[in-house]
Amino acid sequence: MPYIEVDPNLPGIRSLMAFSPLTAEPMNKLAGLLLRTNEGLSMAEREMIAAYVSYLNDCFYCQHSHGAIVSCYLNDDGALMKQIREDFETADISDKMKALLSVASSVQKGGKYVREEQIKRARDAGASDKDIHDTVLIAALFCLFNRYVDGLGSTAPTDMDSYPLRARQIAESGYGSHLFSKPKTA
Amino acid sequence: MPYIEVDPNLPGIRSLMAFSPLTAEPMNKLAGLLLRTNEGLSMAEREMIAAYVSYLNDCFYCQHSHGAIVSCYLNDDGALMKQIREDFETADISDKMKALLSVASSVQKGGKYVREEQIKRARDAGASDKDIHDTVLIAALFCLFNRYVDGLGSTAPTDMDSYPLRARQIAESGYGSHLFSKPKTA
Repeated sequence: MPYIEVDPNLPGIRSLMAFSPLTAEPMNKLAGLLLRTNEGLSMAEREMIAAYVSYLNDCFYCQHSHGAIVSCYLNDDGALMKQIREDFETADISDKMKALLSVASSVQKGGKYVREEQIKRARDAGASDKDIHDTVLIAALFCLFNRYVDGLGSTAPTDMDSYPLRARQIAESGYGSHLFSKPKTA
Repeated sequence: MPYIEVDPNLPGIRSLMAFSPLTAEPMNKLAGLLLRTNEGLSMAEREMIAAYVSYLNDCFYCQHSHGAIVSCYLNDDGALMKQIREDFETADISDKMKALLSVASSVQKGGKYVREEQIKRARDAGASDKDIHDTVLIAALFCLFNRYVDGLGSTAPTDMDSYPLRARQIAESGYGSHLFSKPKTA
């Protein structure tokens, strides 16, 4: 049961964004700027960071929403995110992404957990200033989103078929205008 | 030393926002919407939540920046924030604010740490849905800001006289246009 009165037909963060559309607008803009570009990191890599941090924060709604977007972009069945959750160091991703997921996992604990040697490892693997900046800010943004979603007790769909449908909408249209609508059934 | 190349003349989050002005814009908009209104919670109360969560996250720059804004609004010498940091339950604030700071301190740990009895206590003390929503979102936003500031190793002024000057600028003009400028000396 959510802690405030929200539309029971909307799940997770979408119910909160409908409750407070004024604050939803800049949050979606920030999500769009950080997640919907292939500059440096690909959109799939950006969503990997989002989904992994949400997993570390144990946020059911966000980890499954963004995990489904990774699968949608990569056309996989969720196997890669499963590998990453189990141990990103042995997952089928680049050395640069392993180094950046290590940075993101420190950011999830707190900003001061990031160590210089983690940054050096990322640079040695080819990460630019922008890649490092975006990794830290995506990880920090999901520390916000996960706390917003769970701190207000919003509900998450347990019907796992709804996540790929919604992921397809995001993959096609981004974060924005269709936000408060219910996912179309296939 | 910051982990990425930023303007050494700008402190804390301002150096990062100058590095990435595109993402700075929605972050400042969100800060403005949540901190620069007296609807329900006063601007001073909103900044108290921001400063207290930043203290819990041990973010030197944010706790002193926002603590100075509280002092500026209340025309005090920092005594109230000191009381709050030591034990908000005995601080000279309303019962509603005590209940909301309790919620904020749980959000700082993670969304799932918020308990129904904390929400009930806040309601019993007069908190509305909007007060509870804004408290959770301000606390979550500072979990983002604190991680952005410290996760990229940005520098914070150790000259404590600079914080009240900057606080006065924010109190007068809000979060926005003057963002990348250096504080004017008095």
